[in-house]
Amino acid sequence: MNSWGEKFRITLWGESHGKQVGVSIDGVPAGIELQEEDFLTDLARRKSGAAGTTPRQESDMPHIVSGIYNGYTTGAPLTIEFYNENTRSGDYKSLETHPRPSHADLVARQKWNGYNDPRGGGHFSGRITLALVAAGVVAKKILGSGITYSTDIIAIGGSHRKEEFAEIIERARQAQDSVGGVVECRINGIKAGIGEPFFDSVESQIAHLLFAVPAVKGVEFGAGFKAAEMMGSQHNDPICDAEGHTSTNNAGGIVGGISNGNEIVVRAAIKPTASISAEQETFNFESGTMEPLVIKGRHDVCITLRAAVVVEAVAAIALADLALRA
Amino acid sequence: MNSWGEKFRITLWGESHGKQVGVSIDGVPAGIELQEEDFLTDLARRKSGAAGTTPRQESDMPHIVSGIYNGYTTGAPLTIEFYNENTRSGDYKSLETHPRPSHADLVARQKWNGYNDPRGGGHFSGRITLALVAAGVVAKKILGSGITYSTDIIAIGGSHRKEEFAEIIERARQAQDSVGGVVECRINGIKAGIGEPFFDSVESQIAHLLFAVPAVKGVEFGAGFKAAEMMGSQHNDPICDAEGHTSTNNAGGIVGGISNGNEIVVRAAIKPTASISAEQETFNFESGTMEPLVIKGRHDVCITLRAAVVVEAVAAIALADLALRA
Amino acid sequence: MNSWGEKFRITLWGESHGKQVGVSIDGVPAGIELQEEDFLTDLARRKSGAAGTTPRQESDMPHIVSGIYNGYTTGAPLTIEFYNENTRSGDYKSLETHPRPSHADLVARQKWNGYNDPRGGGHFSGRITLALVAAGVVAKKILGSGITYSTDIIAIGGSHRKEEFAEIIERARQAQDSVGGVVECRINGIKAGIGEPFFDSVESQIAHLLFAVPAVKGVEFGAGFKAAEMMGSQHNDPICDAEGHTSTNNAGGIVGGISNGNEIVVRAAIKPTASISAEQETFNFESGTMEPLVIKGRHDVCITLRAAVVVEAVAAIALADLALRA
Amino acid sequence: MNSWGEKFRITLWGESHGKQVGVSIDGVPAGIELQEEDFLTDLARRKSGAAGTTPRQESDMPHIVSGIYNGYTTGAPLTIEFYNENTRSGDYKSLETHPRPSHADLVARQKWNGYNDPRGGGHFSGRITLALVAAGVVAKKILGSGITYSTDIIAIGGSHRKEEFAEIIERARQAQDSVGGVVECRINGIKAGIGEPFFDSVESQIAHLLFAVPAVKGVEFGAGFKAAEMMGSQHNDPICDAEGHTSTNNAGGIVGGISNGNEIVVRAAIKPTASISAEQETFNFESGTMEPLVIKGRHDVCITLRAAVVVEAVAAIALADLALRA
Repeated sequence: MNSWGEKFRITLWGESHGKQVGVSIDGVPAGIELQEEDFLTDLARRKSGAAGTTPRQESDMPHIVSGIYNGYTTGAPLTIEFYNENTRSGDYKSLETHPRPSHADLVARQKWNGYNDPRGGGHFSGRITLALVAAGVVAKKILGSGITYSTDIIAIGGSHRKEEFAEIIERARQAQDSVGGVVECRINGIKAGIGEPFFDSVESQIAHLLFAVPAVKGVEFGAGFKAAEMMGSQHNDPICDAEGHTSTNNAGGIVGGISNGNEIVVRAAIKPTASISAEQETFNFESGTMEPLVIKGRHDVCITLRAAVVVEAVAAIALADLALRA
Repeated sequence: MNSWGEKFRITLWGESHGKQVGVSIDGVPAGIELQEEDFLTDLARRKSGAAGTTPRQESDMPHIVSGIYNGYTTGAPLTIEFYNENTRSGDYKSLETHPRPSHADLVARQKWNGYNDPRGGGHFSGRITLALVAAGVVAKKILGSGITYSTDIIAIGGSHRKEEFAEIIERARQAQDSVGGVVECRINGIKAGIGEPFFDSVESQIAHLLFAVPAVKGVEFGAGFKAAEMMGSQHNDPICDAEGHTSTNNAGGIVGGISNGNEIVVRAAIKPTASISAEQETFNFESGTMEPLVIKGRHDVCITLRAAVVVEAVAAIALADLALRA
Repeated sequence: MNSWGEKFRITLWGESHGKQVGVSIDGVPAGIELQEEDFLTDLARRKSGAAGTTPRQESDMPHIVSGIYNGYTTGAPLTIEFYNENTRSGDYKSLETHPRPSHADLVARQKWNGYNDPRGGGHFSGRITLALVAAGVVAKKILGSGITYSTDIIAIGGSHRKEEFAEIIERARQAQDSVGGVVECRINGIKAGIGEPFFDSVESQIAHLLFAVPAVKGVEFGAGFKAAEMMGSQHNDPICDAEGHTSTNNAGGIVGGISNGNEIVVRAAIKPTASISAEQETFNFESGTMEPLVIKGRHDVCITLRAAVVVEAVAAIALADLALRA
Repeated sequence: MNSWGEKFRITLWGESHGKQVGVSIDGVPAGIELQEEDFLTDLARRKSGAAGTTPRQESDMPHIVSGIYNGYTTGAPLTIEFYNENTRSGDYKSLETHPRPSHADLVARQKWNGYNDPRGGGHFSGRITLALVAAGVVAKKILGSGITYSTDIIAIGGSHRKEEFAEIIERARQAQDSVGGVVECRINGIKAGIGEPFFDSVESQIAHLLFAVPAVKGVEFGAGFKAAEMMGSQHNDPICDAEGHTSTNNAGGIVGGISNGNEIVVRAAIKPTASISAEQETFNFESGTMEPLVIKGRHDVCITLRAAVVVEAVAAIALADLALRA
């Protein structure tokens, strides 16, 4: 469904080429100072325009349409809308017979008997993540100024050397191709005791949201998949003071599904954008055989660049919900 | 919370050394043939006794206490209980002042102000996964006999060579240590169209449950973290027939969060058991300094061995819930 | 919270004098023909303008901003917005010190530490029911054309004689007072088997929504409170054919919380509008004593007139959700 | 479904003639002193044995099987079970062809395709309310000792004179009939600010649970249906002090869906027991015509007597959940 959260509940809607993308947030405590300007920094981090991002540019101006009075949240649902402006709905008809590989075109058509909005991916568009970034800004306000976020792209196309990233992306662009990457988000200041066993562990909640983000195909915490290679004596994080700090942090700040007061560390694997300009051979339902497909339109070469702030946003959303529940 | 699912809703309870571990399953369709014997095969896969598993042995007999009449499910809640028998509640008092590294001892005490049941990890014990395995059996019945499950341990301690696994585990045992591993679960026969955008993608639902399982620190689907290293032209899965089969399966059977009819592929990274017999230096809250800790009791050297069936069970639970919702 | 429903999930937002009132509906099946005109008939039934209703007139035009493509629902969230136009936000400051009796003024201020939007009742305004009426129209489309709704005002100010209603209301208006009433909604065509024991009985779901509607203070089904006066031999509804029809319908079409195929009958008691023009003595927090209060603004003498369609809408919403779940 | 609540979440199961009736309560704060004896007083109020109640007697001993350690709640799910002992599963086969009027026999069979447990009403039995009474005891502990409950039967068979009740019931018993009644529950000490707009008003939550209780056909708060007969000037409750006390309480302690600090007043109409010993004419599916039915077994003449504590329990449950959420 399109709602998530128990105390900080977000409901989102919208399509890539519809009228708007919006989010209504329930459970925002009253009395938080908030204005539209507060969203701009994080929205800018998600924006296109840099090398490797789509040339489609939207103003992405947030419009708060409920839940604010005299510059403060009221306790009533906080609703934020983004109007779609720069849409070019070309010939999406052809996608129905010649769906793009690794895109939702075909499954959406199957699931909704052909009634889905195919323009720009419809409700499956990455544009929906605007709503998450906006909700993330509110979540961070709830978590408070004592929490710091450090979010980084730690790999592109298999390389972990930052100085190579630009070149890797440029090579992909020239090849009319795309390339994946890994985002790491580190959050400091979350106190111990957040997380609700059994099912709503910190990891479960963050991973749930991350895997809702289009393009995320892997999630790990702390040592993550490396933990599977370790011995217990290496992996265990010795507690070294009365505050519960640990001398290592292989747990990524979470034990038994509960925050332990150390840095929360989460990584998300972002697949390469499915829409590439290079020709691809794939099944055509009209002809009944595989045929070359050339995808038109404006696409990101490396969506990882814009996904970083989304990873941070959903981590903040999950933590805000759990913090309000604790 | 201790409930999960919308149409197939499981609620679990129990402690390692309490009276029982139980699960009540709501939303089980009426008319499914079910008896206690049906649980035994999967329960046996979770059992200890093999090399690398704890010597604590429980009979793990399932008792169906509601929801069955004349050998069929009735549509009312199906409740299954496991009685705890072979418990040895030793001196858990010492854990309060000298908590085990990478265990929930400290966070549980902090979260519940010292009222948590510390015996054998209490509600944080891996013993709770009995409830998941039982629910998984029912989930598989709902998904039907057309679905096949292939679940494998694909790595232990960093090695991907199965013939080495036994030796790696034995070395860890001799070193009074533990070792992690990776479980891969492949599910065939899930039809296209399962999964509910935006938040309840197939990946989100499976990952949510997997990260609730103690010891899981990473989850990936299809190519997973490898996808982040790939180009779009490599990663995209060309559709090759009218059924939507793809010639590769980097997506792990899921696009846009929705099943596409290909094999579902999920992997979970299992950390090494936190309880090791070797001495560890960690903070003692009584003395106020780090001190050597020796953990007594019976523990698994490689919990991955017993976790495999749990991974399969939660994947089935998530898919059954989504299938009933679709 | 501001969301309700499991398969047909409505999320609403807005304030009386804010920018808009809106609703996003999740779970609407794809392929339902829908346009903005479809809402107008029911919206008109909720409108002011008749004798006994507020002179504040809004155009109440619905704007579908997501979930529609080519005139059909898409399976993605369906969002409908109503812009507030005819607002006169006078001096609501005084309500903070001199709150209106039987209004949410005081509790809202207490609950949200004075950050609530006080203009026109803010989020507590009856204007929010616009969202319910809109959702009700969609719910009726889902239930289908075989279902008929007969909704009536059966009492005003204690009188059950319809010919007296206008006069009772006019007398109340002249006395600068208001008057309550009872709405009865009868729904035909709901098949047997709707309703989810234990907690989500048909009665529970309808009553839950009805009691969320401002002004509803009593709800009953079938014989309702009269049932409490009856003997079992009078109250029991004999089954008289193989379709499960009953010769009486004291159950109001619901037994064991499940629809039995007979007419669903629900009644709601609507209290008199709390805002009356006549002077009232009530506590002033500034002076610290009870003082005369005169409420300004435009108010309904008999909100029951406009509540009828709201009762029908929420009954349809509850039934649509349960029908999709069954 | 068989779960309810957001912070105080109860999940129940069981059948009248199955092995047990049970409830697992999630969200119980850690550190509440609790033992099995604490349940006995309220359980006794629900017991049969008095004039007008069924001769079937159960020991109704509660068994706490999880969530307690050293006499205190632990923060983990609290599970309580009641074993069924005194069951006489006679010939329920005949109900399939000759279902009892105003009972769930027929709808249960329709809804679950004949797989429902018919013995003693199965999951539809009033015996399930044992779980509610137990959960109510825990809810009252959470609400605290400052809250007082006054629950009364205010009408039987249409009479409001208590001295007549015994005689009315005795007459019904002699006539092999049953009789309905009204329960009123008054709760003092609930502070202002409980209740979550829009959908989770205090009235919505209490009514939701009440209408899940078998036999409840009407619910009202404060003046209730009488409010519909009143003028605003009569019905409005003037605030008379800085604590928000009102000089009348037509609102029943709830305005805008939120508690206002005054006494919570709720009434429930209880229908006469559907199972009566007198012969009834109703459809026989085997013969295809209406035929006389004589219901055997042990039944309550006036279930209202035992329902009083159930009404109080569910009110406490709803308020505890909302109090934990506020």
